[in-house]
Order: sequence, then C-alpha cells, then structure tokens
Amino acid sequence: MTDIAALKARRDRALGAGAALFYETPLHIVRGEGAWLFDPDGRRYVDMYNNVPCVGHGNPVVAEAMGRQQATLNVHSRYLHEGILAFAERLAALHGPQIESVVFSCSGTEANEVALRTARFATGKRGIVCTDATYHGNSELVGALTRAGAAGPADPLVRAFPFPQTYRPLVEGLSEDELCEAYLARLSASIADLEASGVGFAALIVCSIFANEGLPNIPKGFMAKAAALAHAAGGLVIADEVQAGYCRTGRWWGYEVSGFTPDIVVTGKPMGNGLPLAATAASRALIETFRARTRYFNTFASSPLQAAVGMAVLDEIEGRGLRDNAATVGAFLKTELTARAPAWDAIGDVRGEGLFLGVEMISGGAARTPDTALAGRVANRLKDKGFLTSNAGQFNNIVKIRPPLVFSRADAEAFLAAFDETVVELRG
Amino acid sequence: MTDIAALKARRDRALGAGAALFYETPLHIVRGEGAWLFDPDGRRYVDMYNNVPCVGHGNPVVAEAMGRQQATLNVHSRYLHEGILAFAERLAALHGPQIESVVFSCSGTEANEVALRTARFATGKRGIVCTDATYHGNSELVGALTRAGAAGPADPLVRAFPFPQTYRPLVEGLSEDELCEAYLARLSASIADLEASGVGFAALIVCSIFANEGLPNIPKGFMAKAAALAHAAGGLVIADEVQAGYCRTGRWWGYEVSGFTPDIVVTGKPMGNGLPLAATAASRALIETFRARTRYFNTFASSPLQAAVGMAVLDEIEGRGLRDNAATVGAFLKTELTARAPAWDAIGDVRGEGLFLGVEMISGGAARTPDTALAGRVANRLKDKGFLTSNAGQFNNIVKIRPPLVFSRADAEAFLAAFDETVVELRG
Repeated sequence: MTDIAALKARRDRALGAGAALFYETPLHIVRGEGAWLFDPDGRRYVDMYNNVPCVGHGNPVVAEAMGRQQATLNVHSRYLHEGILAFAERLAALHGPQIESVVFSCSGTEANEVALRTARFATGKRGIVCTDATYHGNSELVGALTRAGAAGPADPLVRAFPFPQTYRPLVEGLSEDELCEAYLARLSASIADLEASGVGFAALIVCSIFANEGLPNIPKGFMAKAAALAHAAGGLVIADEVQAGYCRTGRWWGYEVSGFTPDIVVTGKPMGNGLPLAATAASRALIETFRARTRYFNTFASSPLQAAVGMAVLDEIEGRGLRDNAATVGAFLKTELTARAPAWDAIGDVRGEGLFLGVEMISGGAARTPDTALAGRVANRLKDKGFLTSNAGQFNNIVKIRPPLVFSRADAEAFLAAFDETVVELRG
Repeated sequence: MTDIAALKARRDRALGAGAALFYETPLHIVRGEGAWLFDPDGRRYVDMYNNVPCVGHGNPVVAEAMGRQQATLNVHSRYLHEGILAFAERLAALHGPQIESVVFSCSGTEANEVALRTARFATGKRGIVCTDATYHGNSELVGALTRAGAAGPADPLVRAFPFPQTYRPLVEGLSEDELCEAYLARLSASIADLEASGVGFAALIVCSIFANEGLPNIPKGFMAKAAALAHAAGGLVIADEVQAGYCRTGRWWGYEVSGFTPDIVVTGKPMGNGLPLAATAASRALIETFRARTRYFNTFASSPLQAAVGMAVLDEIEGRGLRDNAATVGAFLKTELTARAPAWDAIGDVRGEGLFLGVEMISGGAARTPDTALAGRVANRLKDKGFLTSNAGQFNNIVKIRPPLVFSRADAEAFLAAFDETVVELRG
C-alpha cells in the first residue's frame, strides 16, 4: 500500500504545493493498459477521463514507433526530413480544402498562441472574442482568455460573449431560432465593442464543442451563423480542437458536430498519445503570413519523433476503427445515462457526443441550481468503485466522461453498474 | 540522391514557406549516431551544432527508457507518480540550496513564461530587464524580449541594456573594472526607467553565458554585481540555462562560469535528448506563489515519460563523464582554434567555454567590422566537408560550434583539419 500522505508531502516539496491533484484521496498510478490504469497494488481503474492516450494507455504500436524513431533520429526541423512532411500532409487532408499547411508545436497553449498571432498578423487587428467560460491554454496571451471578464481587470484586447446553450438560456421563453439570434447579438456586440475601442476584431476562437463550458446543446445553426458574422466583420474563425477533435465525438472534428468551417484549426492533446505534440493548421497563405512575421522556430517541434508518433496514432485510429468505436460506444453510454435521469432528480441533463459526455448535477428541481459539491461526490464515489471521471463546466457541476477512444462496450456496461450503485448511495 | 529542390517545394507547402532551413543547399538527414548524422546516401556529417541530443543522436539508453515508459504509463500529473518527484529532486540537487522546487513544461518558451510570471507575482511589479541581443523564446510574452529595442515599438514592460563584452566595449579605452561599471550603470538605468514609468522592476533575465549575444567575454565580476544590483532594486534574477546548462560549458551550469547565484533557473533543450522537456526551478516559496496565482496545469508536462527520459539523460551524462568530456575536448578545440587566429586576419576572436565555442569573423582589421557573409561561407564550406556548424551572435557573424556532449577528441581533430582547409580556401 502506498503511503499517500507521505507521497503527497514529498510532491508538495518537489513540485510546490498547489500543483493540482484529482480526488479527495489522490490516486497513485503506476501502469496503464488500453482504457485501464493500475495502482501499485494491482487494483484496476477504468479510465473514463483521459483523452490524451486516445489509442490506449501503453499502446505498443505507439511505444514501438516512439522508441524506434528516437533510436534512429530525432532532431530539429532546420534539416530536411520527409517524416514531418508526410504527417503535415496527412493531417491537412483530414480537413476541408481550406486547410493546407501546418505549424507544429509542443502544446495546445503554443498552438493557440500561433493561431491568435496568425489572426492578428493576417487582419492587422488585435481583438479576440471568446466565450465567457472557456480555457484555451496557460501562457500570458492565451491565458487571458480564461473565463475572460469573470474576474480580474478586463484585458483590452479580449471580449467574452455568453456561451451558447439551451439548458440555461440567455433569455427564457424564446424559440430556438430566437435564442440563436440572442446569442448572435451578444457576439456581434463584442465585435462592435472591440472595433469601437480601436483595437479592431481579429478572431473568434471557440472550442468547437464548448467543452470547458460544459458541452452545451447549442441553438441549431448558431456556429455557422457565428462564423459568417465573424467573417463579415473581417475576422477569422479559430476552431480549438484540442479536446473536440481526433474522433472524440465520433466524428473527426468537433466543427463537424457544431456545423461550421474554421479558418484555423488547433489540435493537441491526443495527437501523440502522450508525446508533447500540437499543431496549428490553416491555408498556406495564413501560415506563410505567420512565418514571415515571426521567423517562428520551435526546437522540439516538427521533429522526426513527433512525425513518427503522430503517424502511429493516426494508423491506430484508422486501422482499429476507433472513430466508429467512439460513436457507437458513446451513443450507447449516452442513451443509458439519459435513461437514468428520471430516477434521480439531481441529474439535470446528459449531454455530449461520442466519447465525451457530461452529466449535469443540479438541485432545486426547476431552478436547476448547479450542485458542484454533488458532482464532486459522484466523481469521488465512482473513483472508489474503480471508475475515473472528473468534473467540468461553467459551474464545475458536471460529471465529465471522456475515456480513451479504445473504451469498450464492456467497460461502459461495468461503468453503468457502478453509476447505478452511486445513484442509490447518493440519492438518499 | 535526394531531389533537394523537390523536397523543399513539398516542405514549402506542408509547413509553409519561411520555415527556417540551414545552409545554402539544405541538408536531408535520415539517421544519427552519437555526434554523427547521416544523409540518405550514407554520407556522414560530424554534428557540431546540436545541443539537444546532448548524450548523442540515437542514444540507445534514452530510446529504451522512452519506449519502455511509454509502453508502461504516460499520463498527466494529477495522479501521484514517483518518477517525476525523483526527477525534480535530482534536478534541484544539481543547484545550490536556494533551488528547491520545479515546474515542468514542454519547451524553453513555456519555462521562461513561468519564470517571468513568477517574478511578477512575487514582486508585484511587471518590468523585465534583458540584454539588447537576446532570445528567450517564441511566445508573445517571451518573444517581446527578442532583441528588445532593436526594432518595432518598445514594449512598455521591457527594457534592454547593452550586453556586457570586452571585444566591442560600450566605451573604448576603459580598464576592465571601469567597463564593468559602465555596463552596470546601463543596467541600473534600465531598472530606474522601469520604476519611473510606473511598471516597476520584477526581474533581470539573462542567458548565463549570453549565447545569442555571441558568447562574449564579460568584464570580470559583472554578473555577481548585476545580480546584487537587481536584488537591491527589489527584483529577481532569472538564469536562462536552456543553452548554457547541462554541462555545456564543462560545468553543470552557465552561472558557475559567469559567477552569480540566480533566484530562478530555466532549463530546456538538452534535458530530454529530444523529448520536449523544460523546467523552471526556484525556491519552494517562489514556486508556490506561482502555483497559487495561476493553478498552472500543463497537459504533457510532469509526466512519467518526461521523468523516465530526463533521468536516463542525467544517468548518461554522469555515468559517461560527459561533463569532463565537454571540458577536456572543448578546451583542446578552443586552444587549437585560438592558435589558428594569427593565420587568418578574418578570425577576430575565439570565445566560449567547454563545447560551446564561437569564432568571430571580421573584416577591416582593427575596425573589427562584423563579416556576416564570411561567417555564412565558413559554415557552408564546412558543411560541404561534412562538419555541421551554424552562425550566431549580435551580427550573426560568429561560427557557432556546439556539438553533442559526446563529441570526441577524434571528431575535434577531424574538424580542425577541415577548418584548416577552409581557411586556405577562403583566405584567398
């Protein structure tokens, strides 16, 4: 048995106290296999949280590709190497014809920096519009978008509009079309405000499925109209697919689910199954504008290692039919969870697509009061039963379910049994 | 034979034209071994540029550790894992007692972001002082330090002072002590200017050996006095050891060479022998200030993979005596290059420590006019002979020699023969 308190104390010194840990009693993990994680005593946990190891923890194909390429060659990108070209071409071909060229980097933060700066260079404007409950990364530039307007002094270059949703609508009592227009009006006002302030409007950036906002159902047609509005105002549309993309929703890209065509696509987390790897993809003209203005060089990016691992991940997704698996198992899980809602009035809503689902915990019935504490209890209880989830959303009151793409129907059935137990135990 | 033009055209589309390439005719590389790189025809190049693969291209110990850990477990840091704690402890122990805790990240850029933001949080001030010919990374925040003041609108939060050097001194005709005071006066003026402007002084950041500035010989005692001056003004001292550290100079850290004690140490490039891995290390109090203010989380950082690879690199450096190798082979190379200077008046100076040397190319004799074009011709000529160097420095007129730490005396002797040929061919 691990002495959790001793390990935690050691960690508080080595990494500094305040480095985030999951669960009331943190979990000590030593091994992974597919959708499962194991503690030092060999206890198995079904991983329903981690999207980074998309083709499975310990995936042998990826590990072999990684070790082999590292043993062969891993060097920066100022020499010619075919690997990264083939990977860039394959990645671009997964999008529509407007996406031609790629800037690789090491994290979603770095890739979003490239996207925002590209938009600024291309438009000659500086203002960015995002939602009011988003997260796109941790640098000073990208971090300024985190829950913009929610706390602290407003950044003069950023405006946040209320994220679109039908569950807690901006205005009650509207039709879906009217609600859509209400959100568009707020987006439009944000753009107008940037223009009036003199910084101008460079880009609208959204997670294509509004993951950190809580996977809302959005008014039908909203994103297509939002993109058109941004374009009409002279700005670009950036799709942050760090969480939404790579078959997470049962489709390749979240923008297919939400129905819009981005100018710039940012990808990250699952690309390397754990190797630091991210990308900013756009038209060749946009990418070349960025390169001309910055002479950007990223020591570890566009490397033979990133290429070999990135290709192995795509091979696994395609060869094992993991997009279909995400769609099928995800649909089963969503149907089953939705069917459970009537049995517990604390389940306010079940949302999401594919293997990215959220169960919204509420109290107060029709008041739909977010129950953050209860969502935390659910995640901790499920962890005790061997199922790893987390919490998310604007109020952190959502049980977040986002397993590796290899998550199976059998895993889902086992989870549902544990979820049923949890409902009985916590329903009181 | 590679069709270089065709590969270049393919790259221009996949990555966008403007992605930097070395040499007049770019080099197509497919394999590496120790200090050697190989093209598709099996032609061998002695790598005298790459500091990232510090324990050698294709190092089997590192590749094995990487593949094994990836096959075992590679997951984010919100679970407990002993690997990253042991690595953080080992890294901190390589510094003095003021360095206790570590924030890991994926690139030197990310690590410098953490350092700068930590200094701002800790001091409550925002102003940063750097040199006028530096580079610390490519994000918007860190990129603002790149040759600050040299071009574009001045960042109100940044001041640049002339980097210290004896080769092209700030004022001619002074004693070394007087010159030291002259540079300190400029640093002091930068700090005072930040304070007068209302943003205040948060930190002095320098590459400990002023690598991008051109590896200058600095007035004796300058850095210790500069650090004292920064501290007296209430600011912190950040040592960027991304290039300077990890035994590059024949000592563990560049600040040992320059003689100062930093509050925050940033490391990157060589840490993972090519795996994206960087770190910001400081006192526990400083690191905890950063964590409390940001709730920083970096998806790919502090992972079991970073830990396993980082430990393997340290094992190789220590087990194979690579610090001593850098000191010994570097001293031999510097002595031999210095001995060649009288034979070619274009060699203005030979500088550096360990396996990081610079040969300054000039014209005009006593005028010491930087000869950037000649430095480029030397690097290209050496490449044709099978030796890979590059150019650096304030005027890009320095032949930059910075091989993997495994670079041998035999490699150095072969290089010197090629250098002698180059001198004869270009001296005219």
